[in-house]
Amino acid sequence: MTPEPLSAEAFAPFGDVLEASGPSFKINEGFCDRYTDRARLDLDGGRFGISLFQAAPRALPYRCNLLERHPQGSQSFVPMTDDPFLVIVAEDEGGRPVRPRAFLTDGRQGVSYLRNTWHGVLTPLAGSGLFAVVDRIGDGPNLEEYVLDPPLIIG
Amino acid sequence: MTPEPLSAEAFAPFGDVLEASGPSFKINEGFCDRYTDRARLDLDGGRFGISLFQAAPRALPYRCNLLERHPQGSQSFVPMTDDPFLVIVAEDEGGRPVRPRAFLTDGRQGVSYLRNTWHGVLTPLAGSGLFAVVDRIGDGPNLEEYVLDPPLIIG
Repeated sequence: MTPEPLSAEAFAPFGDVLEASGPSFKINEGFCDRYTDRARLDLDGGRFGISLFQAAPRALPYRCNLLERHPQGSQSFVPMTDDPFLVIVAEDEGGRPVRPRAFLTDGRQGVSYLRNTWHGVLTPLAGSGLFAVVDRIGDGPNLEEYVLDPPLIIG
Repeated sequence: MTPEPLSAEAFAPFGDVLEASGPSFKINEGFCDRYTDRARLDLDGGRFGISLFQAAPRALPYRCNLLERHPQGSQSFVPMTDDPFLVIVAEDEGGRPVRPRAFLTDGRQGVSYLRNTWHGVLTPLAGSGLFAVVDRIGDGPNLEEYVLDPPLIIG
């Protein structure tokens, strides 16, 4: 499977692309454009927190053998470098991930997964692998995993 | 005023440094370290959202003539490049900013300002100037500004 360029339109069923496009307004005496409220954040109990993820860069072709989802909250990933990373998502059918899609960011994009959306684990392809993550902090069964057999081969 | 290197200890009275340090645990089959819940997010009404800020890079020496604060919520800045940026904060005394401090990030740090903390506007020094911002979305008087006369000269 070859990753597609990440676009807001293609990604909309799975979540939001965090990028500086669309409506904005000037702040800070004109030195800054603000693109407000770009993710459909969603929470069932708990609260939002900001965490840091330090992930090991992967190489293509990438073997994806596991998808996960979070039934109790959205999860947003902001890369702290301008390197592209791989984004893998799938639709759900009766509790199983189906019709997987792979996207590649352009180095100026983050992603926010909708609550309960199947997705691959964090897969930077270059750079430091450092991300800020906005997700639910709290107790509860907020992780489901699904082993892919055979795995997806991407790249 | 010469900026100090940003450290969690020095910055604690003003907010949190978003960096991969301190306690963490392994996720994603060992490929990722998670540093959980690193910012004291705080909200009075409204809700949290993720916005994108596209700021023009500034040069040193930087002339800072305005501080602002947000009485209704914390505000967190995650740089989407690995370039250092300038962080300016001040203590409050009777509604006026006093004893300003200037910090320089190391290229792997974001910052989260505590609610009602005086701070300068976003001042990238290099790179694309793209940041993700987690702050309060909602109506209400959530912005106070204070003109500095004379301005602070930093760098």
